[in-house]
Order: sequence, then structure tokens, then C-alpha cells
Amino acid sequence: MNPANANFADEVRASFAQQSIMNLIGANLSRVDPGLVEITLPYHNDLTQQDGFLHAGIVTTIADSACGYAAYTLMPAGSRVLSVEFKVNLLRPAAGEAFVAHAEVIKAGKTLTVVRADVFALIKSDRTLVAMMQATMICLRD
Amino acid sequence: MNPANANFADEVRASFAQQSIMNLIGANLSRVDPGLVEITLPYHNDLTQQDGFLHAGIVTTIADSACGYAAYTLMPAGSRVLSVEFKVNLLRPAAGEAFVAHAEVIKAGKTLTVVRADVFALIKSDRTLVAMMQATMICLRD
Amino acid sequence: MNPANANFADEVRASFAQQSIMNLIGANLSRVDPGLVEITLPYHNDLTQQDGFLHAGIVTTIADSACGYAAYTLMPAGSRVLSVEFKVNLLRPAAGEAFVAHAEVIKAGKTLTVVRADVFALIKSDRTLVAMMQATMICLRD
Amino acid sequence: MNPANANFADEVRASFAQQSIMNLIGANLSRVDPGLVEITLPYHNDLTQQDGFLHAGIVTTIADSACGYAAYTLMPAGSRVLSVEFKVNLLRPAAGEAFVAHAEVIKAGKTLTVVRADVFALIKSDRTLVAMMQATMICLRD
Repeated sequence: MNPANANFADEVRASFAQQSIMNLIGANLSRVDPGLVEITLPYHNDLTQQDGFLHAGIVTTIADSACGYAAYTLMPAGSRVLSVEFKVNLLRPAAGEAFVAHAEVIKAGKTLTVVRADVFALIKSDRTLVAMMQATMICLRD
Repeated sequence: MNPANANFADEVRASFAQQSIMNLIGANLSRVDPGLVEITLPYHNDLTQQDGFLHAGIVTTIADSACGYAAYTLMPAGSRVLSVEFKVNLLRPAAGEAFVAHAEVIKAGKTLTVVRADVFALIKSDRTLVAMMQATMICLRD
Repeated sequence: MNPANANFADEVRASFAQQSIMNLIGANLSRVDPGLVEITLPYHNDLTQQDGFLHAGIVTTIADSACGYAAYTLMPAGSRVLSVEFKVNLLRPAAGEAFVAHAEVIKAGKTLTVVRADVFALIKSDRTLVAMMQATMICLRD
Repeated sequence: MNPANANFADEVRASFAQQSIMNLIGANLSRVDPGLVEITLPYHNDLTQQDGFLHAGIVTTIADSACGYAAYTLMPAGSRVLSVEFKVNLLRPAAGEAFVAHAEVIKAGKTLTVVRADVFALIKSDRTLVAMMQATMICLRD
């Protein structure tokens, strides 16, 4: 996958820094490559549902941003990216010391980009797939 | 829709109170009826994506909990509810003073319950549909 | 919902007539209004899965075309419509004498249109909801 | 992935033979392994939408059956499989001489199994990804 914007990594990092929700939940951008982005989130008990697992909406928050930025790495300079839709299957309770959302572009189009993400729970050296997302992102030009 | 558990409303409120993420983002349970739940979230600039709109993952967080609790209102005493999967279409940027996720059960089954949710942005007396969710919830019995 | 193309109904009917799959399965266009389309399919035992129910892919076939044409009723003259994605929940086995896919536009945009469809099974005078779709359609201009 | 039923392949073939829709459209079961099933469909102009591409509902028909049978390979003897829900992204127009739906189980559970499928269009020796499905299947025991 060939990025159309040589500064894609800097632009992803600058945009991520403006997502105040990432600061609130404590997520960070752990990998930015052409068509591939990872976001890592340490577990915190402020982020849970009633059983103490990471809330599915927070699993979705990191998966959605990872998908959006994976799409954004391949968009031309001056673009904006927005989520059109996504679908998430929750495979197992999201229990772990940290979580990684790993997103990869499947098809980059001029207007729409389709992206998949896997979300893994990390416990010591094990990682377990806890959710997967199939998403559509749109490229807006000003 | 007939609740199997006469204490459904109390149990939903007790479970919601244990979702620490709801406290972190400032969401509250604004309506609990058989097969129908609403969650309200005032806008706060800690909850946004890069353009200042409510992050799609937070839109999802309130929609998912509303769907889960709408399903839970119809489950027998002693059940637990977990999200199996959901799909969200983001119709417009989530800009507003507050947001309401309104969830209604479409089909309640012994094991699986299908729920729909609409998320509205509120500005003064106007409400605008910003997202919609189609979700599957599972009933677990201990 | 205001159609941009005064000939929308004729154009939907002409396009539907070109969908050879509709002829193969025996489906017909039973309603065309602005933002709302219905497709009706009599049961036939050529269309079933292993238990004799209408195959979920055929349920999807009529729901997808109904969604696409509901979107198309609101598109300007000279447009083409394609499905971007859809999500289907199968609520009950699709058993009936006939099936109706009822699609309504939720949000019509310049590029993307979001549509919902319900698929009902008809037995005598009863209709039962058997599936629901949430779909995104794209408008292409030549 | 370990099949719980030593006769899984025979049972998948027997069930597939009862899906009359597969006969109508001309699809065949081209691969049955534990957790992995492929269905192949030659192009035929009876199966198309208005532009002559394979209709998205037919793309879905082979993807759904491939997902269902991939799940079924891992279910115990005496089970039945039904589709709970699926989501399909249509990446490119489905143009080709034939199509292959390749489904793989991601997570096999006692009740629910999550499966992904890719659908490829074949033209001479090239294969192009035209759609992808993320699906949930349920195991029913009599």
C-alpha cells in the first residue's frame, strides 16, 4: 500500500493528539504504517462494564480510531476521515492488563475505504482475540 | 412486552451503577421500561474525536449499554446479559449539547435478543438522529 | 422525502426489470414511493436452505434490492446506485407463503444513503418479522 | 480446530445437497475442512443485478452457506446450524467467470460461532476480493 501523503505518520499523530477521548481513557498510538495502525490501551477500572471487563464501547473506541487512522494513512494530503459505519463481534469478555486494536486496510478507494480491526487482550506474554471490527471510512476533501 | 422479572428496573439501575465507564463519561440512565431503555450523556470536550464531535466509540458506548439493558429488562431473574455483536451507522457528525441513546427490543428470545437503538443529538429543543445500532444480546444464566 | 427525479418510479421499475435474479427467484416490485420500496417474493421450494426455510441469502437478496431502490428513488436523474454494505439479523426461520421486504430511507445524502429494511413472512393474513437489514448505498454519477 | 463429529464432512455434504437454492443458482461445495468451507459458483446471467454483476444477495447466499457450514464442521453430531446475523462489505462489483466464498471459523463456542468469509471473483488465473462477511452462527441441539 502506497501512501499518497508522505507526511501520513505525522498527520495521524497530530490528529490522534486532538482526540481528547484517547487522553481520557489513556490510549496511545503504538504503530503507524501505510494501511496499518495500532492503538494500545492499558486496563483501568474506570473503563469497565458491570462485570469488570472493558466496556464493549471502549473496545469499539480504540478499534474505530485504529480503523480510521489506518484508512487515513492512505488518503491524500488535505483529507479528513470520518467513520461511515462499523460492525463489531465480541468474541470473549475483554479481560486483560492491556488491549491492542490492530487495524488494516482491506480496500482503499477514492471515497470509501474498508478496514478490518482485531482487538487483543494482553495478559503477560499472551494475547487473546476479544473482538473484531469490519468498518467503512469516508475521505472528505475540503 | 412482559418482563419475566418484576424487579427488572431495580436490577437495571443496580447494574448500570456498576458500569464505571458510565460514571467516567457522565452518562445516566434516563428511562427504564419493559423492552425499552434510554441513556443520556451531556456533551463534554473530554469525549471527542479530532473535530470536536462526540467520538463514534462513545456514541456506541451509550447505544450498546442501552441495548443491553433493554434486553435485560425482559430476562428472568438471575440472568446476566452480554453483547454478542452490534452494527452502527453514523449518519451525521455527533454535535450537540447532549445525546440520548434510545433502545428498543425487536425480538426477545430465550438465549438471544435483538435490539435496535437510535442515538439523537440534542440542541435546545431539537433532536437529530446521529447514529443507529442493530445489536444482538445474549442471556447467560448462572 | 422529496424525489429529485420526477421519473423515479419509472426508473426504479426499469432497473428492477433488468435484475435477472428477480426473475429467476420470482420476486416482484410491489411498492415504489419516495424513499420507500417493497419487494414481494412468493415461497418456492427452489429457494430454500436445508430445513425448507427461505435461504438467508434470498431474504437478503430482496432486502438489498428494496434498500437500493428506496435509496434510488431520491437520487438525481442519471445516477446509479450500488450497495456499499449491509447487516442482517435473522430473527426467526423464514417460513411463509410469501415474503415482503419493506425498505425505508433513514438518511439520504449526496453520496451515501442509509436505509433500513424489514422482511416479513406472510401466512394467510398474518405477517411476521423474520429479518431486518441496516444498509449503506452509494450514488454514482456518470 | 478439532471437529467433535468425525463424520463432519459427510454431514456438511448431505446438508448442502438439501439446500435447493444451491442447485437453482448452480453452486457447489468445493472444500470442506475443519473450520473451513468453500463454495464455488460459476457466473450465470440469471444471477445478476441491473449492471450484469452478480447480485449482492447471491454473493451473500454463498458466503452465508460457507460460513454456516464452516461452523457446522466443528459442531457435535446431532446439531443443527442457523445464521444469527451477518454483515457484508461489497468491495468491488462482482464481475467474474466464477466466484468462491471462502469461510473460516474465528471462534467456535458451545452456542455461538463467529465466522469470516471472503468472496473472490475469478477471471482466468486471477482472483479478486469482491466482498467480505463477518457472521454469527448458532448451534441448535434437538
